[in-house]
Amino acid sequence: MSDHHTYKKIELVGSSKTSIEDAIENALAEAAKSLNLMEWFEVIDTRGHIVDGGVGHYQVTIKVGFRIVNS
Amino acid sequence: MSDHHTYKKIELVGSSKTSIEDAIENALAEAAKSLNLMEWFEVIDTRGHIVDGGVGHYQVTIKVGFRIVNS
Amino acid sequence: MSDHHTYKKIELVGSSKTSIEDAIENALAEAAKSLNLMEWFEVIDTRGHIVDGGVGHYQVTIKVGFRIVNS
Amino acid sequence: MSDHHTYKKIELVGSSKTSIEDAIENALAEAAKSLNLMEWFEVIDTRGHIVDGGVGHYQVTIKVGFRIVNS
Amino acid sequence: MSDHHTYKKIELVGSSKTSIEDAIENALAEAAKSLNLMEWFEVIDTRGHIVDGGVGHYQVTIKVGFRIVNS
Amino acid sequence: MSDHHTYKKIELVGSSKTSIEDAIENALAEAAKSLNLMEWFEVIDTRGHIVDGGVGHYQVTIKVGFRIVNS
Amino acid sequence: MSDHHTYKKIELVGSSKTSIEDAIENALAEAAKSLNLMEWFEVIDTRGHIVDGGVGHYQVTIKVGFRIVNS
Amino acid sequence: MSDHHTYKKIELVGSSKTSIEDAIENALAEAAKSLNLMEWFEVIDTRGHIVDGGVGHYQVTIKVGFRIVNS
Amino acid sequence: MSDHHTYKKIELVGSSKTSIEDAIENALAEAAKSLNLMEWFEVIDTRGHIVDGGVGHYQVTIKVGFRIVNS
Amino acid sequence: MSDHHTYKKIELVGSSKTSIEDAIENALAEAAKSLNLMEWFEVIDTRGHIVDGGVGHYQVTIKVGFRIVNS
Amino acid sequence: MSDHHTYKKIELVGSSKTSIEDAIENALAEAAKSLNLMEWFEVIDTRGHIVDGGVGHYQVTIKVGFRIVNS
Amino acid sequence: MSDHHTYKKIELVGSSKTSIEDAIENALAEAAKSLNLMEWFEVIDTRGHIVDGGVGHYQVTIKVGFRIVNS
Repeated sequence: MSDHHTYKKIELVGSSKTSIEDAIENALAEAAKSLNLMEWFEVIDTRGHIVDGGVGHYQVTIKVGFRIVNS
Repeated sequence: MSDHHTYKKIELVGSSKTSIEDAIENALAEAAKSLNLMEWFEVIDTRGHIVDGGVGHYQVTIKVGFRIVNS
Repeated sequence: MSDHHTYKKIELVGSSKTSIEDAIENALAEAAKSLNLMEWFEVIDTRGHIVDGGVGHYQVTIKVGFRIVNS
Repeated sequence: MSDHHTYKKIELVGSSKTSIEDAIENALAEAAKSLNLMEWFEVIDTRGHIVDGGVGHYQVTIKVGFRIVNS
Repeated sequence: MSDHHTYKKIELVGSSKTSIEDAIENALAEAAKSLNLMEWFEVIDTRGHIVDGGVGHYQVTIKVGFRIVNS
Repeated sequence: MSDHHTYKKIELVGSSKTSIEDAIENALAEAAKSLNLMEWFEVIDTRGHIVDGGVGHYQVTIKVGFRIVNS
Repeated sequence: MSDHHTYKKIELVGSSKTSIEDAIENALAEAAKSLNLMEWFEVIDTRGHIVDGGVGHYQVTIKVGFRIVNS
Repeated sequence: MSDHHTYKKIELVGSSKTSIEDAIENALAEAAKSLNLMEWFEVIDTRGHIVDGGVGHYQVTIKVGFRIVNS
Repeated sequence: MSDHHTYKKIELVGSSKTSIEDAIENALAEAAKSLNLMEWFEVIDTRGHIVDGGVGHYQVTIKVGFRIVNS
Repeated sequence: MSDHHTYKKIELVGSSKTSIEDAIENALAEAAKSLNLMEWFEVIDTRGHIVDGGVGHYQVTIKVGFRIVNS
Repeated sequence: MSDHHTYKKIELVGSSKTSIEDAIENALAEAAKSLNLMEWFEVIDTRGHIVDGGVGHYQVTIKVGFRIVNS
Repeated sequence: MSDHHTYKKIELVGSSKTSIEDAIENALAEAAKSLNLMEWFEVIDTRGHIVDGGVGHYQVTIKVGFRIVNS
C-alpha cells in the first residue's frame, strides 16, 4: 500500500432558502451522488439573491476535497 | 428600452444577537426602507462583540447590489 | 489611569456538529476558561469534515481580541 | 481656497453585450447623470452571463472616484 | 421540483491573438461542446505571451459556473 | 427600542500636505458636514503625489462606518 | 488548425513524507494516469500533519493546467 | 551553539489619541513588560474610533516577532 | 549551455484613449525599445481617468517578464 | 466526553541553512518542547537572508495548530 | 506628440528612526537622485526593527511611479 | 554617516530541474553578477512546467532586496 494519497478539490455552489448551513449540506448531498471519498470542505464565498427586501436564496461557494480512488 | 442595466453596490453592517443569517436579514430590512430594486448581497466579513464569554452580537458586513432606477 | 489600552489577538478553531454559530460559541467558551477581558472576535475561515455525504463537523477559525490586564 | 480635497468612491456594475470597455462606459454614463466631479475609475471585477454558449452580458464592477463639492 | 439548485465551477484558460473578449469567447465555445447548462463566468487572471515586442496571445483565466443536471 | 443597529460604510479619500493622520482628519471633517453618527474608520490604502522629489500630498483612502438613523 | 488553444485547470493535493517537491511529483504522477496534455502547475498552498513533534506528511495543493484535447 | 533560531509572532492592537506611530509604540511598550527578545514588528491594520467628527483613537494592529529563549 | 534560465519582471503602466488591449500594446512597445527578450506579461490592475463623463484614458498596470541576457 | 474540540494556532518562524523543509522541522522541534498536542501546520511565508550571493538562511513562517488540553 | 504615456513602477524600502512619513520621504529623496519624472507613490508595507522595547527604525515599502523619458 | 538606508526590491524568476531551493539559488547567483549589496529575498510564487507527467522545471518568483549604494 502507498504511504501517501492524492486528493482532488472541486468547487460547488449550494443554495438554500433557509440558512448558510443548509446551502452547504445541499451542495454536499448533490456531490455525494457521484463521489464516494469526500473528506472535507472549505467555504469560499457567501452571497445570495434578495426577494421582497429579504434573503431569497443563500448561495454558498465551497471547495470539496476527496481522495482519488486507488491513490 | 435599453439592452443593459447599471447597478450600484453599497456596504452595510447588520447585527443580531442570534445568528449570522439574522444579521444579514436585519441589514436587508433596513436597506429596504429606502431602496426598491435590491437584487443580491455578498458577505464581506463576519465578526462580533463578546459578552460574558459568548457572542453578544454578530456583526456581518455585506455588500448589497441594486439596479439604478431607469438604468 | 492611562488614556489608551493594548489588546492581544489569538487565533482559535472551534468545532461543532450543528452550526457555524455553535462552533464560534464553543471556541469562545473554551477561551473564557483562561481569559477575562475578551471583547471581540473575527471569523477568518469556515470549513469542516464530511461524514456520510454531509457535514460531520464545522470548523471555524476565529481571532479573539482581549484587553491585556492593566494596559 | 483649501490646499487639499476630499474624494468619495462609489461602486458600480456596468453591463454590455459587446465589450468590457463598453460596460465601463455604460456605468460612467449612468453615474454622470447625477455626479459632476468624477475623476477616476478602478476595475474591481469582470464577469458575465452566458447565453447560448457565449457571452450574454459583460458585467464589470468599478469604483468611481469623484471630488466632494466644495471640498 | 426542488426549491434549490447546485452549481459547479470549473477553471479554464482561453487564448486569442486579438482581444481579451475573444479569449473569453473561445474558452466558452470550447466548454459548450460538453456542457449544456453554463450560466455565468468570472475573469480570474489576464496575461499573455509577447512576440516581436507586442501581444502574441492573450491568455484569460475564467471560472465557468453551470448547473448540475437534475439538481 | 431595537436590540440591534445597522451601519453603513462609505469610502473616502482624504488628502494632506503634512501627514497621513492629517489626511484622515481632513476626510473625517468633510464627512462630518453631512453625517451625524460616524463611529469608526478603517485605512484601506495610502499613497500620494510626488512634487520636487518629495511628498506633495498624502492621499489616504478610508472607510467610514456610521449608524443609520433610527436603525 | 486553430490559432488558439483552450486549457483547463484542476486542483490537486499531493502528499509526501519526505519533501514539498516529492508531494508535487506524487500529485502529478497521479494526474498523469488520466491526463495526457498537462503543461504546467502552480503551488497554491503548503501545509502538513504533525507526528511526534515533526512533519508527518507534507500536503501541497497545486493547480494543474492541461490543454483540452482537440482545442 | 545552534546555527539557527526560532521566532514566534504575536498579534497586538495598540491605541493612541495622537498618531499611528504612538499607537505602535504603546503596543511595543506593553509587550516589552513580558518579552525580552523582540526583534521586529509588521503593521497589519490601521483603524480607529471617531469622536466629534474626528479621530478619537487610532487602533493599529501589529505582529511582533521575538526570538524564543534558548532557541 | 545552462539547463536553466533566469527571468526578471518589471512593472509598467500603459495608457490609451481607446481600449485596454491598446494600453497593454503601448506599454509593450515602449519596453521593446530597450529590452530584447520579453516573453510574457501579466495584467495587475486596470483603471483610468474620467473626462466628460466617460473614459479619458485607460491605465493598465502590467508586469513584463524577460530573460536575463546570457542566463 | 465532549463531541467537539477547540484548537489554537500560533505563528512561528523557523530558520535553516539548508532547506525549506529543514526550517519547518526546526520550528516544529522548538514548539514540541512546550506543546504536546500539535496536529497540523500551514506555511504562510518563505523568505531568507542572502550571504555571499546565495541563501544564508531560509526563514519560513508557519502556523501550528494544536488541540487545547481537555477541550 | 503622443496622446499617451508609459510609466514604470519600482519598489523601494525607506527607513527612518522618527516616523512613517519620514521613511517615505527618505526613499523618495534617494530615488530623486537618479529619476526626474516621479509622479506618485503607493505604500505597500509598513514594518520596523525593535530596539530597547520601542521602534528602532520604521521600514516602509513603497512603489514609485515615474514616466518613462520620451514616452 | 546617514542614520538610515534605502533599499530596492527587484522581482526575479529562477528555474531549476531539481528543487525549489535550487531555483532560488540560481536566481540569486544570476543577480549577484551585477548587484553587490543583496540582503534578503521573499518567495512570491512557485510553479513549473510539466514534462512526461512530472516536474520539468521549477519556476520560483522571488523578490530580492538590496541596499542602494551610498544610501
